[in-house]
Amino acid sequence: MADPEHRESITELIRRGVVLSPDCPSREVLKRMTSLWGLLVLMILRDGTRRFSDLRRAAAGVSEKMLAQTLQGLEADGLIDRHAFPVIPPHVEYSLTPLGVEAAERVAALADWVEVNLPRVMEARAMRQAAE
Amino acid sequence: MADPEHRESITELIRRGVVLSPDCPSREVLKRMTSLWGLLVLMILRDGTRRFSDLRRAAAGVSEKMLAQTLQGLEADGLIDRHAFPVIPPHVEYSLTPLGVEAAERVAALADWVEVNLPRVMEARAMRQAAE
Repeated sequence: MADPEHRESITELIRRGVVLSPDCPSREVLKRMTSLWGLLVLMILRDGTRRFSDLRRAAAGVSEKMLAQTLQGLEADGLIDRHAFPVIPPHVEYSLTPLGVEAAERVAALADWVEVNLPRVMEARAMRQAAE
Repeated sequence: MADPEHRESITELIRRGVVLSPDCPSREVLKRMTSLWGLLVLMILRDGTRRFSDLRRAAAGVSEKMLAQTLQGLEADGLIDRHAFPVIPPHVEYSLTPLGVEAAERVAALADWVEVNLPRVMEARAMRQAAE
């Protein structure tokens, strides 16, 4: 967890354009976490371990290739664990690491906010269209 | 704000694959908020009103076209206000709406988490590379 002092300095860094600068790897990590599929995978895995096929069904609309890429990225970032059972046909399970649990909490807070406030956003869109 | 009961039911909806389903507009709103430029704009505007040129400088690497598109999307969603002063040369300012302030808080919590935990992510990446 960020202590208040560290948060202060991050705000300061953002002000100076250092944090999330094109040269900082944080941009790529954030992009992977907040890509639509990354975000959905993290949220789905909050409920517990899932097989590849379960994830594919839960993240409606994702292609097999996109899901595989998303899982590889999150695994490389240390956010999810991949466990392959030596059976035929292959059985692969994914779960959140302790780091991933923390990341998923923040992602879920954001997604929950959007869901709860969607009526306000849709109202803003409707008002804007009416004014045009 | 989401009350605990509402959060419960959202988790339930996610479990059933209803929330963030391809047909739900929440997907698009979330995509705009968590696009790299959307995220950066929301975070920068937490510090107060900014001119277009200030935003472009602060969000290093963004093109004029991408920034304009990002601002239009966030404005349409009711997250930011655009104020154009009738002067020559044009002077346009952007600021967060009350709804945008709430959204920016969640986005900042996520980005702060990434910044603070970046060393852990980089360590995971290094360990994985060493194991390959």
